[in-house]
Amino acid sequence: MTRAELILQIQNKKSFLCVGLDPDMGKIPQHLLETEDPVFEFNKAIIDATKDFCVAYKPNIAFYECLGTKGWDSLEKTLNYIPKDIFTIADAKRGDIGNTSTYYAKTFFEYLQFDSITIAPYMGEDSVSPFLAFEGKWAIVLGLTSNKGALDFQMLRDGEGRELFTQVIRKTQNWGTPENLMFVVGATRSEDIAAVRNLAPDSFFLVPGVGAQGGSLEDVVRYGWNKDCGLLVNSSRGIIYASGGEDFAAAAQTEARKIQQEMELVLTAKKFI
Amino acid sequence: MTRAELILQIQNKKSFLCVGLDPDMGKIPQHLLETEDPVFEFNKAIIDATKDFCVAYKPNIAFYECLGTKGWDSLEKTLNYIPKDIFTIADAKRGDIGNTSTYYAKTFFEYLQFDSITIAPYMGEDSVSPFLAFEGKWAIVLGLTSNKGALDFQMLRDGEGRELFTQVIRKTQNWGTPENLMFVVGATRSEDIAAVRNLAPDSFFLVPGVGAQGGSLEDVVRYGWNKDCGLLVNSSRGIIYASGGEDFAAAAQTEARKIQQEMELVLTAKKFI
Repeated sequence: MTRAELILQIQNKKSFLCVGLDPDMGKIPQHLLETEDPVFEFNKAIIDATKDFCVAYKPNIAFYECLGTKGWDSLEKTLNYIPKDIFTIADAKRGDIGNTSTYYAKTFFEYLQFDSITIAPYMGEDSVSPFLAFEGKWAIVLGLTSNKGALDFQMLRDGEGRELFTQVIRKTQNWGTPENLMFVVGATRSEDIAAVRNLAPDSFFLVPGVGAQGGSLEDVVRYGWNKDCGLLVNSSRGIIYASGGEDFAAAAQTEARKIQQEMELVLTAKKFI
Repeated sequence: MTRAELILQIQNKKSFLCVGLDPDMGKIPQHLLETEDPVFEFNKAIIDATKDFCVAYKPNIAFYECLGTKGWDSLEKTLNYIPKDIFTIADAKRGDIGNTSTYYAKTFFEYLQFDSITIAPYMGEDSVSPFLAFEGKWAIVLGLTSNKGALDFQMLRDGEGRELFTQVIRKTQNWGTPENLMFVVGATRSEDIAAVRNLAPDSFFLVPGVGAQGGSLEDVVRYGWNKDCGLLVNSSRGIIYASGGEDFAAAAQTEARKIQQEMELVLTAKKFI
């Protein structure tokens, strides 16, 4: 999917919501566990319920991988079920050297046909660039994550006082463009979103941490907005586990619609729609 | 596998060689491509040929993942085929938050029964610690990698002149012990191995980059040796693709034996055997 198509979708749906498809076997409603493919049945119901309110789906690959080949089947069926005009993100946090990264890229871009994949930057350019060589596909590089451990290394400062995450943003931008490169920028450190926006004015940010992890949509927009919106705000647990009962899909729809309506107010206020 | 068992294996086999099982469909000998499971047939022959000369096998997961469910089947069969007294490393370079990391750990430690997994440290403690909670299992954290891109971020210096990779070694050691935590330390920057050894005197290092990537066994031993050997030196392409023909297994054996013999000289000189 191109950047222009993504922006058009945001305008059409009046939303920049990404829904995390993280099917935890310990949390999937009981009645689905008796079906042949609980993970796919869960995702299918969530997609049906939320597809009008979001512009992206983000399966975290850990939840599928832990089920072995059955999990990969469920993931493939899920990808095939997601409407083609919705942006898809493999939250895989991969990163290896050269041709090995190319194999990861082939897995997610060609075999599973994801639009994008999240990438860990620690190994540098030759671990990131292979993902940028696929036309119409995106690398989403971890910049500043929303977890407590982000403080351990991402916030380390160099001799000039620049945090590592800002160095990652600075350097990584030379390897791609705002047409094939996004950044993960957590919502829990909202002032730092401003620093990243300053360094990467045109890039889209994938923003986790709104809701369950404590970040606010208001702050994300205040610090992260750019002229093209530039934001994909993710919610996983807050939507997909809004109810643990048989009404889980309806509850997910209610939550997704609520967030979409907040986003519509933002987009209107920003005169983006 | 415990640290003591690993050390005993090194002494018994007179080797600290790790063989990378990276079955690239473009490089697997032609005659195997006609079998039902070329990847497993290739690995099986390599394992038969090299198991007496190495103490560890390290499949890089990218090569299996890119083949979809068939690749996971081949990986599972490979793991079951490796003799139980040989240390196994899932070269997966995973890393995610909290319970998601736990799912990755379950995938590799429980479902596939690997002894260890490589981990990217960028997301900090809560991305590494979940892997350290599994008894008898190991996390092998990327410290200093052997690729060109290692210069991009791993070598960045803080205000006191300390490179990021040294900070990773320093901090990560607080989360585990030399009984459940190793580090990846590339052979291509041999002087830096000394810096890591200084910071982590008791830890085992997984050392890629000897051979094809230009590092020398002599330098690795000079700078990385500790009283328990403390080294697992990996070779992938140099062994498994020593020949691209029908004699690939015999050629792999010749290469593995050659390296084992060099290692035996080292172990003897060090009075370790």
